Amino acid sequence: MLIDLNCDMGESFGAYRLGDDAGILPYITSANIACGFHAGDGLVMDATVRMCVQAGVRVGAHPSFPDLQGFGRREMSLAPDEVEAFVLYQVGALAGFARAAGVELTHVKPHGALYNQAARERPLAEAVARAVARFSRRLILVGLAGSALVEAAAAVGLPAAGEGFPDRAYNPDGTLRSRRLPGAVLHDPAEIAANAVRLATEGVVTAGGRVTVQTLCLHGDNPAAVAAAKAVRVALG
Amino acid sequence: MLIDLNCDMGESFGAYRLGDDAGILPYITSANIACGFHAGDGLVMDATVRMCVQAGVRVGAHPSFPDLQGFGRREMSLAPDEVEAFVLYQVGALAGFARAAGVELTHVKPHGALYNQAARERPLAEAVARAVARFSRRLILVGLAGSALVEAAAAVGLPAAGEGFPDRAYNPDGTLRSRRLPGAVLHDPAEIAANAVRLATEGVVTAGGRVTVQTLCLHGDNPAAVAAAKAVRVALG
Amino acid sequence: MLIDLNCDMGESFGAYRLGDDAGILPYITSANIACGFHAGDGLVMDATVRMCVQAGVRVGAHPSFPDLQGFGRREMSLAPDEVEAFVLYQVGALAGFARAAGVELTHVKPHGALYNQAARERPLAEAVARAVARFSRRLILVGLAGSALVEAAAAVGLPAAGEGFPDRAYNPDGTLRSRRLPGAVLHDPAEIAANAVRLATEGVVTAGGRVTVQTLCLHGDNPAAVAAAKAVRVALG
Amino acid sequence: MLIDLNCDMGESFGAYRLGDDAGILPYITSANIACGFHAGDGLVMDATVRMCVQAGVRVGAHPSFPDLQGFGRREMSLAPDEVEAFVLYQVGALAGFARAAGVELTHVKPHGALYNQAARERPLAEAVARAVARFSRRLILVGLAGSALVEAAAAVGLPAAGEGFPDRAYNPDGTLRSRRLPGAVLHDPAEIAANAVRLATEGVVTAGGRVTVQTLCLHGDNPAAVAAAKAVRVALG
Repeated sequence: MLIDLNCDMGESFGAYRLGDDAGILPYITSANIACGFHAGDGLVMDATVRMCVQAGVRVGAHPSFPDLQGFGRREMSLAPDEVEAFVLYQVGALAGFARAAGVELTHVKPHGALYNQAARERPLAEAVARAVARFSRRLILVGLAGSALVEAAAAVGLPAAGEGFPDRAYNPDGTLRSRRLPGAVLHDPAEIAANAVRLATEGVVTAGGRVTVQTLCLHGDNPAAVAAAKAVRVALG
Repeated sequence: MLIDLNCDMGESFGAYRLGDDAGILPYITSANIACGFHAGDGLVMDATVRMCVQAGVRVGAHPSFPDLQGFGRREMSLAPDEVEAFVLYQVGALAGFARAAGVELTHVKPHGALYNQAARERPLAEAVARAVARFSRRLILVGLAGSALVEAAAAVGLPAAGEGFPDRAYNPDGTLRSRRLPGAVLHDPAEIAANAVRLATEGVVTAGGRVTVQTLCLHGDNPAAVAAAKAVRVALG
Repeated sequence: MLIDLNCDMGESFGAYRLGDDAGILPYITSANIACGFHAGDGLVMDATVRMCVQAGVRVGAHPSFPDLQGFGRREMSLAPDEVEAFVLYQVGALAGFARAAGVELTHVKPHGALYNQAARERPLAEAVARAVARFSRRLILVGLAGSALVEAAAAVGLPAAGEGFPDRAYNPDGTLRSRRLPGAVLHDPAEIAANAVRLATEGVVTAGGRVTVQTLCLHGDNPAAVAAAKAVRVALG
Repeated sequence: MLIDLNCDMGESFGAYRLGDDAGILPYITSANIACGFHAGDGLVMDATVRMCVQAGVRVGAHPSFPDLQGFGRREMSLAPDEVEAFVLYQVGALAGFARAAGVELTHVKPHGALYNQAARERPLAEAVARAVARFSRRLILVGLAGSALVEAAAAVGLPAAGEGFPDRAYNPDGTLRSRRLPGAVLHDPAEIAANAVRLATEGVVTAGGRVTVQTLCLHGDNPAAVAAAKAVRVALG
């Protein structure tokens, strides 16, 4: 297996638990850890980083718009300098826990609405890329394969990883089918695993042509998602 | 002048402005920068770090209890592991901006109620010291001279700096006279400057005997405070 | 059955779910609904009030210290006027949803650390009572039976309800056994039901003598708690 | 003088002060009081309501998107039911302080980005109007004269007030000239007073024709704004 498998983790907060982080851990190679803006708090971040380090899973930051109540899923019109500052804040906060655990962050993957807006809006994508580059030019910026975020990373000389979603349906232009439409999210582990193999080997077709995919997004939200993740891992062998 | 002069900075937030950071900057050698929990946000932190770096002022973190509405001045009963995680979060967040500006953090000084509680409560002091030590054993932990926080730093092998307050009245045991009592805060620049010289040369008498003072706290809250800071700087020449 | 049975409800927040509100609803007569400071948000409050109104369950406010990350369980040293303002804010916010649903609030029960501190600290208890009385002198203030909160309510002429906890062990002075000690929380439905009957008929012995109990606290945190609630309801017939 | 003069008030927060509320108070007839989402907290709301009641100024709610750091000025894509719930929450919270002060709310005016989006987007405007109507059908909904918000109020049978801005330049379609463009904000008290008279007597021309204006927005941000407010008041005599 040559492709990275990532999963969003550490999305509990205070008394609230979310996701089966321990369940998904054996099947992934990179974790995107919430940084307190859409989910996560110091205790959750600390525990999640330690768990990943122990499992040999790479640790990355999963920064978001400041929107705990909306879980970072609501688009906001922040100015680029605001986004740059908030991303740098979150990357630094997580990097502190990584440093305390004896590792360095390997990557940054924006969360939710920030991910989606940065895939489309070049100025926002550049703000994210600037924040990451200011922290370290060795951090890999993860974005939707073929999107403005991946292009913005390249433009500032950051390593980028194009992401594919084996459990999501794609539009012909390489964007993701909206979750509000039927069939947007797939649930059959076999189908998801087949998509993973195809994404890993063929990449994805976008408006700008076929692009390769360097990392696949898995989920640990529920037992079915964990089962699908396991199927992907097995298929990619 | 051999003694450090520090000031709390970066305590604006969003649309709200607080303190005359630019005014106090010429008179200090170290800045304690708010990290978003009692004041400050990513934009304020970024700008404040840059301003300090440009002025050659050392950059440190000023972590607080999570209490923006109370400006971190209200005591809270957090468990030690909560305090450890929150302090590490805040130190990391500020360290990201320092790194982006090409410098390293030099120190950590807890803010407000966290500072006061950590001066008295050894388990809380140890939690703060653990957080700082996990980030870096080269960071100087700043606490009230002779307090539990300074002792806790020493216990984990962290460099510590005992702090003195030239504009505050002291109790005979080396604690600060409560702000609720008359005469707790001094306003005459000449008197404050004289106190600064005495603290720098004689230290402070505490319940456990005389202790030295490595850093003096100045304020930039208003023009009078800035004038007093200037008087201190001149007196310490 | 002449005694009131209450339960904390509406403690979900954003993407986070907590408690089995629908499961406990058939067994209670009063709901204490979170107001956004330790849990709950506008959507959760709106839905919870509607659900209670439909079930014929009385709607009350469950105000807390401002501490979402700590779920309102951490003691804070707020000034009485701060507590008064925050309680009034939360009572008003919930009352808006009640009004929109065509009912009036019947009661206010402080949450977590605010409940515990107000049971011991008379100035804090008076601040809570003042806030409630300023909103309406018909609101019932719910506090630990025999506590300072119940006394403070009486002192300002508010109706009060002394609360008993059938699933908790009591100290000889009528305070609750700390959750940190073994045996503090009971789990056997039969034992809990027997306690409920005893509390309803005999009240509770406190440092100041025996006091009556007007309401019993039930829980909907998990299936076992719901089963215990059902047993209490059956026993009180 | 037959036209209402309103001003945003109570926009301080915790240790942060903003606006000269006492300075503007003599010149206005209605206050739009922040409800804690973009500014304001319980203490500020309580004090501001009392001050307005004492001055005989009408008290209204000034709800916002949940965005303290951005002062409610950043557009967000909330679902209509989220907006409805958040507006109802904020109206209720302020109504509690009004009730405690012996008055009823007279109006609701959305703040910042919520005001601007609701002026353009009908579904959002309807969500705001629904929230207000659910609280009370006697509350006046204040929106930009001729905007979707005023139309949405009428559609649900709420009284509405079209607002005019004497210190702002207008586009030919009745929308406000963007603050990012030169000349958007006027500063000359005489010019502002003349605009106030014209808005009060002639209304404003919009894409849909001339509409009347029932309330004028004044500002208390600084001494010049207060001077302009005084000039408006005198001119409208």
